[in-house]
Amino acid sequence: MNKLLGSIEEAVRACGLRDGMTISFHHHLRGGDYVLNLVMEAIAAQGIHDLTINASAIQDGHGPLGAHIRNKVVTGIEANFIGPVIGRVISEGHLERPVIFRTHGGRASDIDDGTSHIDVAFIAAPSADERGNCNGILGPSACGSLGYAMPDARHADKVVVITDNLMPYPLSPISISEADVDYVVRVDKIGDPAGIATGSTKLTRDPVALRIASQASRVIEASGLLRDGFSFQTGAGGASLAVAGMLTETMVAGKIHGSYALGGTTGYLVDMLEAGCFEKLLDVQCFDLKAIASLRENPRHVEISASQYAGPKSKSCAADGLDVVLLGATQIDTDFNVNVHTDSNGRIIGGSGGHSDVAACAKLTIIVAPLSRARLPIVVDHVLTTSTPGDTVDVLVTQAGVAVNPKRGDLIERLRAAKLPLVSIESLRELAERQCGVPRPAALSDRVVGRVLYRDGKVIDTIYGVQ
Amino acid sequence: MNKLLGSIEEAVRACGLRDGMTISFHHHLRGGDYVLNLVMEAIAAQGIHDLTINASAIQDGHGPLGAHIRNKVVTGIEANFIGPVIGRVISEGHLERPVIFRTHGGRASDIDDGTSHIDVAFIAAPSADERGNCNGILGPSACGSLGYAMPDARHADKVVVITDNLMPYPLSPISISEADVDYVVRVDKIGDPAGIATGSTKLTRDPVALRIASQASRVIEASGLLRDGFSFQTGAGGASLAVAGMLTETMVAGKIHGSYALGGTTGYLVDMLEAGCFEKLLDVQCFDLKAIASLRENPRHVEISASQYAGPKSKSCAADGLDVVLLGATQIDTDFNVNVHTDSNGRIIGGSGGHSDVAACAKLTIIVAPLSRARLPIVVDHVLTTSTPGDTVDVLVTQAGVAVNPKRGDLIERLRAAKLPLVSIESLRELAERQCGVPRPAALSDRVVGRVLYRDGKVIDTIYGVQ
Repeated sequence: MNKLLGSIEEAVRACGLRDGMTISFHHHLRGGDYVLNLVMEAIAAQGIHDLTINASAIQDGHGPLGAHIRNKVVTGIEANFIGPVIGRVISEGHLERPVIFRTHGGRASDIDDGTSHIDVAFIAAPSADERGNCNGILGPSACGSLGYAMPDARHADKVVVITDNLMPYPLSPISISEADVDYVVRVDKIGDPAGIATGSTKLTRDPVALRIASQASRVIEASGLLRDGFSFQTGAGGASLAVAGMLTETMVAGKIHGSYALGGTTGYLVDMLEAGCFEKLLDVQCFDLKAIASLRENPRHVEISASQYAGPKSKSCAADGLDVVLLGATQIDTDFNVNVHTDSNGRIIGGSGGHSDVAACAKLTIIVAPLSRARLPIVVDHVLTTSTPGDTVDVLVTQAGVAVNPKRGDLIERLRAAKLPLVSIESLRELAERQCGVPRPAALSDRVVGRVLYRDGKVIDTIYGVQ
Repeated sequence: MNKLLGSIEEAVRACGLRDGMTISFHHHLRGGDYVLNLVMEAIAAQGIHDLTINASAIQDGHGPLGAHIRNKVVTGIEANFIGPVIGRVISEGHLERPVIFRTHGGRASDIDDGTSHIDVAFIAAPSADERGNCNGILGPSACGSLGYAMPDARHADKVVVITDNLMPYPLSPISISEADVDYVVRVDKIGDPAGIATGSTKLTRDPVALRIASQASRVIEASGLLRDGFSFQTGAGGASLAVAGMLTETMVAGKIHGSYALGGTTGYLVDMLEAGCFEKLLDVQCFDLKAIASLRENPRHVEISASQYAGPKSKSCAADGLDVVLLGATQIDTDFNVNVHTDSNGRIIGGSGGHSDVAACAKLTIIVAPLSRARLPIVVDHVLTTSTPGDTVDVLVTQAGVAVNPKRGDLIERLRAAKLPLVSIESLRELAERQCGVPRPAALSDRVVGRVLYRDGKVIDTIYGVQ
């Protein structure tokens, strides 16, 4: 048994990769990931074409993928998120087959039950041993949790672990087991540490974001859910993180002992854990160095798989029954439908990630968003793309007021009693339009460039190309 | 979502268990397990028949299973080990279909790849939360690793966790995930702590066993394998444990830093870990309280699944490339074939467990055994049942000398140079017969009561009933 190969090229050959197959990647190295580019370069050099990439996310560091799309090395992409760089390539019609967008939970479940078959999974591993045991918490490219890669490792026909930190056998902790790994390749660097753990995790000083955060905190307090046993997920946007800071004060002052926070984790959730706001952090992905260090050192900070995070076909998942989630929006319409896939021109700039998963699972789903960004209204008549259906969204908090989904009469009463500035979502839409004007409709082509699958696998929307 | 049910009866009904299905159990609670009996009682009370039990082991605490066999509630058993109490029931011909014996690794791999389908897995969990996250290291019935239950949890259609220590959600560490668990039942007690962690883990004072241990230690030292990076597995028999103690002294004195020990772990392996003899303990099963405490507290003591322990169809396993394993024998013949399934009367009294797995994987497989037990020779012409084929056994160490498999000429030279008392295995057989006489051949019936599958799934031997 010798799994340790000399290069990615060798691993590609050893796996028998050929035209038409599906390969997979995870995005825990975020903007700092080198592995997708290294693998695609090796594959392209071998003259292989017509591949489908199934990735938890395509990041803006994956620019070279554009050339592989144009050269038909890659003709299909399935992902939960696609950043603007490759999003533009797809929106302009260069990818042969429409992108399939899933959610983080949906992707995991589709891999788990065989709906998505993966021929070869390439797993960027911050630490690995020569037989493939690996984790994300040790090494110079530490990224924290490897949760999104776990379903791939379990089910792919072939699994290649790529690391820049080869450690003596047996490595522990074991996030992905040698039992599932075919080959191991050592490279100089799997990623840029600065890109792995930067991003939107600095606390905002923007007064609009702080005002939104303050109102969102009041909504949570007024909801009746902020009590012993409280569970919570927040995004990594400025307002969302500011809410975490405000909630910490409230919970500590009120001696409220929550149950767990779920993430996508940041240092702000770690602070809450350490302040006693929560018993546990369940972690499918780390956003910053403090979260990575905490996962390494604090036994109450627990790595979980994407299947356990939010898999709709899992027997249960951590998202089930969450009390409160805070989420962002690129657009939200007067039916509370949220778009996080396309910008107002119709270009692909993101994806659901776990957005629609946790919105569906939580007792209270709060969207925090300013009325407008770059003079474009965020509250609109109809979202260009439905990422998260409005019937799973309860509240929109903007700087100009709080709109509650009319189906949540109970919540309206509670928030009114707490004297929150309740407004109708239509009035927020009007205000946004008054401030920004009504933007020209996006100029779209007839070409379908993407399909958005809801977490249950059904097509919830179709994305057209831009002209 | 409410997985927490009021009784095992309810869980049996909720799983839709019916005639002809296969249910599974793990044996981490060893002689102290109550769960198999509780579940079978609930099933029998519902009038269900013709079940197959697929268990990692059937222990002597499972005596009530005899009645379920006679009443045709259970008509098939697949197991890696069956103790004498139920072994006798089977050997006397009461089980409708022949037992299928597997190895620990073979069972895991057959579950992993679907060869063995499990309809409902019942998992005794020393700690669990209401959604089914569970581990074996916390609670009054702590048993340590849950490694043998992991393939069952991954692949069974329905998974029921049975615990006597329900803890707040989310429990951690997570050995088995809520994502795989359908139902949770709380019972008063899942087992008898005294039976969970007793057994053969006391150091022997028997002079014969100590002499065998001393020779076995010398064999290991002379083999050339006892050097930095050394890896090791030992059983829980008296001589095997004594070897661990002797090796500790040698390794500490010689400043030899081993890589890992694999187990079935006891306090003696924990002592070796703590003394710096090994970097890691990889643990599929704990035998005593010290091992359980170490798994709970020492991050270098790592729980692994049965698939990672020894799965022949895993992409690799920890047993692969082990330097040295020490194993026992009920009989060993002059071709070095070992029997651990049947006694000299042909009655089922055990099974391979991991015996033939690690024998196949290790560089040096040593059988430690006295020449005779209870005036019955252990070294014989032909074993009654082949559990582990002789071509995977390298050395037999008895109190009367050391016999090396003739195919290991290299080893013979090394041991001769170290002045070990080498003898032929035939001479040991003769000596054993001189001491004990040649026993009467076992009086067997024509009825096939068991088939022994080697780790590759092929039938390596057939077990006949006793008259």
